[in-house]
Amino acid sequence: MLITFEGIDGAGKSTQITRLVNHIMSQGVDVLSLREPGGTEAAEKIRTILLDNSHKISPIGELLLFSASRAELVQDVIKPALREGRTVILDRFFDSTTAYQGYGRGIDLELLQSIISFSTCGLIPDITFYLAIEPEEALKRKFAKSSIPLKFEGDELDRMERSGIDFYRNVQKGYQEIMRLNPERFVSINALESITVIHHHITKILRERLPS
Amino acid sequence: MLITFEGIDGAGKSTQITRLVNHIMSQGVDVLSLREPGGTEAAEKIRTILLDNSHKISPIGELLLFSASRAELVQDVIKPALREGRTVILDRFFDSTTAYQGYGRGIDLELLQSIISFSTCGLIPDITFYLAIEPEEALKRKFAKSSIPLKFEGDELDRMERSGIDFYRNVQKGYQEIMRLNPERFVSINALESITVIHHHITKILRERLPS
Repeated sequence: MLITFEGIDGAGKSTQITRLVNHIMSQGVDVLSLREPGGTEAAEKIRTILLDNSHKISPIGELLLFSASRAELVQDVIKPALREGRTVILDRFFDSTTAYQGYGRGIDLELLQSIISFSTCGLIPDITFYLAIEPEEALKRKFAKSSIPLKFEGDELDRMERSGIDFYRNVQKGYQEIMRLNPERFVSINALESITVIHHHITKILRERLPS
Repeated sequence: MLITFEGIDGAGKSTQITRLVNHIMSQGVDVLSLREPGGTEAAEKIRTILLDNSHKISPIGELLLFSASRAELVQDVIKPALREGRTVILDRFFDSTTAYQGYGRGIDLELLQSIISFSTCGLIPDITFYLAIEPEEALKRKFAKSSIPLKFEGDELDRMERSGIDFYRNVQKGYQEIMRLNPERFVSINALESITVIHHHITKILRERLPS
């Protein structure tokens, strides 16, 4: 069983993943929680290159490095774990690439789809939870978490780079389009609900969909 | 002016490139000679991952890492050099990917073409010299250069893994097909000629094709 979480930054994915992992483990089910890039020796080295700010990397190089790291993680960790019957939870997977690089940055969607199929060896999640939130709200949460005491009320928000908000709007539109094309796989959840309400919603859906 | 050299290992590319670089420089022309992977700070780090034998990388990850390195080299080094009017000579470029990964390893050619166009930003060499040699002959040369004193006569060659020879045969067929599809760009040269004869042939063709 492969479960993925998607949504724009600040939607609350990692909080829900932690809750879900604890819940599944309390049921005695073996669960593996992963995040990209990284997860194998080679992939961690690729992660180091991607996170290293001392050099620059083009958006094209970034996508290819990210895809290389994904290819290693899928083949060496995710597929073997699934074969052993383990449950795997991913904080973002290829839908993020489609939403961010495709709809957000404008990289050709057909090309992206080819690279995605190639790097994942065709692996598709059994279920994907999309935490739906407006970009403005997600950004507020993101900044609220940071040490910079910013308030985004009215014109405060206007002072932010409009391109930032526009980018997240395109990513959001991308997710909506991806969900429209994959209705059987996606579950959209209102990220404005409380952490507990969302968690119960997720576990309820998993109980309904899962045999055990 | 972008000049690339292609051919299976042992065809004599690097020898000819050294001769050509010296020749062009002696004419007072600014020339940049490069080899992949590497050539930028990020690309050299990718090269380290590719050459590091302490971890394993899948063929898919390898292709994506190689393409990421190529993307950086093209955008940061090759394209700026060409814009400045410099001559760039490459020891292998994307035709090697098509021949080795596509025809040799069986990766889907259409997908490869997409990744190549993406990673090179559509850059195509002005002229490509293909040093034509039979796989058996190339392997003989390769082993002759190594410290292992091997002779490949008659059944000696048969003892080599047939899959190795078959792989290089497929690569050779791949190059032949690529040349058939790009007759205006490719110049095929018999790699069995002497180093000097081949060098003169290459400089003659460049004089004929180049304005200056």
